[in-house]
Amino acid sequence: MKKPLKIYLAGPDVFLPNALEAGNRKKVLCAQYGFEGMFPLDNKIDDPGEKRPHGFRISQANENLINECQLVIANITPFRGPSADAGTIFEIGYARAREIPVFAYSNTAVHFRERTRFFFRLKPDAVTDRNGMKLEDFEMTDNLMIDGGILASGGIIITREVPKKELYTNLEAFEECLKAVKKLKKH
Amino acid sequence: MKKPLKIYLAGPDVFLPNALEAGNRKKVLCAQYGFEGMFPLDNKIDDPGEKRPHGFRISQANENLINECQLVIANITPFRGPSADAGTIFEIGYARAREIPVFAYSNTAVHFRERTRFFFRLKPDAVTDRNGMKLEDFEMTDNLMIDGGILASGGIIITREVPKKELYTNLEAFEECLKAVKKLKKH
Repeated sequence: MKKPLKIYLAGPDVFLPNALEAGNRKKVLCAQYGFEGMFPLDNKIDDPGEKRPHGFRISQANENLINECQLVIANITPFRGPSADAGTIFEIGYARAREIPVFAYSNTAVHFRERTRFFFRLKPDAVTDRNGMKLEDFEMTDNLMIDGGILASGGIIITREVPKKELYTNLEAFEECLKAVKKLKKH
Repeated sequence: MKKPLKIYLAGPDVFLPNALEAGNRKKVLCAQYGFEGMFPLDNKIDDPGEKRPHGFRISQANENLINECQLVIANITPFRGPSADAGTIFEIGYARAREIPVFAYSNTAVHFRERTRFFFRLKPDAVTDRNGMKLEDFEMTDNLMIDGGILASGGIIITREVPKKELYTNLEAFEECLKAVKKLKKH
């Protein structure tokens, strides 16, 4: 029997109060589509007892886990600012450079420029932020390196609006990604 | 004569009102240390007349420029939130996966956890944000993937406090990175 495609599950889901459960929900959905979901918190990390060395071990384990996967599905829902979670963005760039396709979803459909204006309460026609620094205006979901890297990798970005309280838990767009991967893998 | 080491200059500097001038200041400093600084805005991009295709061209040109470089110096000063600029984070992950050393600097020396608390006006002992999502607590400069990726790449992170109005323009920590690279290349 063919081994199932391994998918690295990137996203701020690891910060949810019930992160392991949230990861399991994604892994169950992956299995329904014939894939194996790999969640960062699955890594068994020995806690060296000090914060920084502990963090570095997690970082290396996550990099290694991406290397083991054939695909990434990234949750790029804006997190603590107008852009996706910082760790997730790093992982998208990392996977892109390794030529691993990245599929992504965001639980908001608002463009990056509008989100940035809204987040910082800028005027609707603002072209710079309050520091005088330019706003990106490329009708993209996030910074152009993110949208560009995902599309160049062979992936797609699926966006949709969800009820506010489901911003970090709604998995409909995630499941759309799984369907898109399934379709791709049939060809 | 040996070709100078090419350094990709990543950072939100591209959003400064006088971005080309800011890039040139960095390139002049690079040259003083015997390196060739490559600034993203140096890329000649034909504007296809539509925003999204234009953005994708910039993204591809930046990826190609990183591929040409032997080293990255990234400005990870927090930008529009507690973390570094999204495009810069993507580029750090990208370079890391290509085994290109990444040196980084931040014009604030405050740890990521404290910055996140401050940015969102959380209590000093908060362990989650207002959405109940966990705060990282690894005594790092930014998300652990960023600090971890940079250190694993062979690079270092230099942080220092600068006057607030120089947050995105002060180049002292940038120059410290150049000195560190110079030292490394002598061995």
